[in-house]
This record gives sequence, structure tokens and C-alpha cells, in this order.
Amino acid sequence: MQGKFIVVEGLEGAGKSSVISLIVDLLKSKDIDVITTREPGGTPMAESIRACVKHNWDETVTEQTELLLMYAARSQLVANVILPALAKGTWVIGDRHDLSTVAYQGGGRGIALSTLQQLKTITLGTFVPDFCLYLDVSPETGLSRARGRGELDRIELAGIEFFRRVRTMYISQIEDMPNAATIDAEQTMQQVHADTITAIMQWVEA
Amino acid sequence: MQGKFIVVEGLEGAGKSSVISLIVDLLKSKDIDVITTREPGGTPMAESIRACVKHNWDETVTEQTELLLMYAARSQLVANVILPALAKGTWVIGDRHDLSTVAYQGGGRGIALSTLQQLKTITLGTFVPDFCLYLDVSPETGLSRARGRGELDRIELAGIEFFRRVRTMYISQIEDMPNAATIDAEQTMQQVHADTITAIMQWVEA
Repeated sequence: MQGKFIVVEGLEGAGKSSVISLIVDLLKSKDIDVITTREPGGTPMAESIRACVKHNWDETVTEQTELLLMYAARSQLVANVILPALAKGTWVIGDRHDLSTVAYQGGGRGIALSTLQQLKTITLGTFVPDFCLYLDVSPETGLSRARGRGELDRIELAGIEFFRRVRTMYISQIEDMPNAATIDAEQTMQQVHADTITAIMQWVEA
Repeated sequence: MQGKFIVVEGLEGAGKSSVISLIVDLLKSKDIDVITTREPGGTPMAESIRACVKHNWDETVTEQTELLLMYAARSQLVANVILPALAKGTWVIGDRHDLSTVAYQGGGRGIALSTLQQLKTITLGTFVPDFCLYLDVSPETGLSRARGRGELDRIELAGIEFFRRVRTMYISQIEDMPNAATIDAEQTMQQVHADTITAIMQWVEA
């Protein structure tokens, strides 16, 4: 049987990593084979593209370049990791996927959603995740947690107004998506984990 | 006065480098400021993208990834090098530009021209070169010359049929382009250079 692709989305510091570990443990406890991915990245070439897009270049990085590199990395990951895993029945838990591009490059940078849709169709055709879990956190809370982890990269340095636009786009997109759930990630980790298990089980059993 | 952007196109081994040197000398002799570019590449970030797309990866490189990386590098080069040079009156001589993508990824890989047009519009808007010089050479001649220079990269290893399709696309595109000329690059270097000077001067004086 085909595996399922679950994506965990949210701002820096939303708590994606700990939620992903939780989902992996939950699925393994049900004897489901599972792998995790992160975007951009997840194959040797895609990790090289990730390093390129995250680097603090001593030149202007155009909005177009950032966007094209995100989709280039995504193409490698979907073709070489996600689709082969799903085909052999393995579930894939993704730390970010296409919705991140809509939120960051669309909401944050202001690139037209019609442009993103064209690139998505060129790169992925009609491929979409089976389920998306959005961890909603304010930029203030998220960035404060992310700073606690160390230096911020080029994209994380974009400023609080940028992240407010990203969050607004996340919320408006999630409202329109079937097979998606929002978790209030301002709560304690225990409550976030409890809500995550509830959301996943509701979707699995639906 | 705004500078002009001249692009030299053709298969590997067509003789682009020597023709570019000739054009640079010709323009300098007329007291025109001139720089040269190569694609993909030409800025630190674009050269990093070039290394990524040329590398012999131990994973499948999707057609989409190759295409998106070409446009990502082009966006950096146009924004950070070509447009600023033209704005201050410097002429730019490009070793490849957008037509290479149409020929290699469109003709060679078979990606739909409508897809390429969408990506071009997203990346470059309406920006086009002022003049394009296409050095026409058979794949047999071109690859034999290229092999004489050393090891072939991932794209150059694609095989003779691939390069036949690339050449066919070059020829059909050039026929439809205003401000373009074809040079028979099977001729001696002396004759290629003479034809190049004639073509450039005819365009400059037109």
C-alpha cells in the first residue's frame, strides 16, 4: 500500500522538530515504516542548493533566485526520496514543503501566488501532501526560541514584519486546505504534543 | 548612453571563446567599455549554482532542477552584473544566455517551450539581448574540439543525439529572431573571425 506524506509547517521556533519526532514515534508504535525529510534539502544535491540559498552572500539575492532554488531542491527531494518511499509503503514526515514557499516567498516576499502556482505545476505537477499540520506561533515567540538555538541565517534575518506576513499567509492558506490542521504552538510542549496526536489520529481514522 | 548586450551562442566546441575575445578587441578599438559574462555563472552565487548543475551527482538530476538552476543563476547575473553594466554605458558580451536554455533544455531535454517561456517571464520579465551571434557547428565537430580540451561535464556527456536536437532548436530559433546572425563555425578560425566582424559591423551600423 502507498505510504502517506505528512508535512509539518510553521515559523522558525514553532516547534516543528519536536512534533516531527512525536509523529515518528506514534507511527512506529503502529508498525508503520517512516522516514523524515527537511526542505530545502534532503538529497546531496538538494543540501548543496540549501547551503547556497541560506548563505549570507556578498551580493543581492533576487527574489526570483531564492524562489527557483527552493523549487530546484524540492524537485530533487520529491523525485529521489519522497516518491520512491511512498511507492514502497513508507510514510514520509516532511519538515516544510510547498506551503513554506507560498508563506515565505509569497506572503513574506510578496511574489504573486499565480507565479508560485506556475512554478509548482512546472516542478511537481499535481503532487500534494496527504496531510499538513501547521504549528501556529507568533513571530515574537518563534524568533525568540530560534535565537536561543544560535545564529540566524539570511532568511531568518528578514525582520519581524516579514514573519508577520508569512504567518498571515500560512493562516489564510490552511483555512482553504482539506486535510490540514492548525495547532496552537504558543501552548506548552505537552499540550502541543497532545493536540498533535489528536489531529493525526482524527485524520488517520477519518 | 545605455550599453548593448551581445550574446554568443553555440554548441560546445563551436569556438565561442575565441569569437568573444575578437568582439572585445573590436569594441575596445572603438573606445567602447566592455565586459564579458558566462552562463551559468558570473557572480559568486551564480558560480556556486553553476558548480552544482555541472557536478556529476550520484543521484538523478531532474529536468526541472537543471532548468530551475539555470534560471536562478541567470537571475543573479542579470540583476547584479548585466543590468548595472548596461546602465552605465558598458557593453556586455555574454558567453551563452537564455537561448542556451531553449536549445539545451527545450531542444535537448524536450521541455515544452511554453514552460521555458513561463520561467523566462518569471525570471527576466521582458529583458532580451540586443544582438545574438550563433556559431553553427555540427555536434561531431564541436564535441571533437571540446574533447581535445579535457574531460566532459555532466551535460556534455549527454550523447550525440542530444546535441543534434540542441542544434536543430538553435537553428529554428535563430531564424525567427530579429537582431541575430548565424556564423558557419565549421570554417577556419580566420574565416569565422572575418564573418563575425562583418556581422557585428552590419548590426552596429544598421
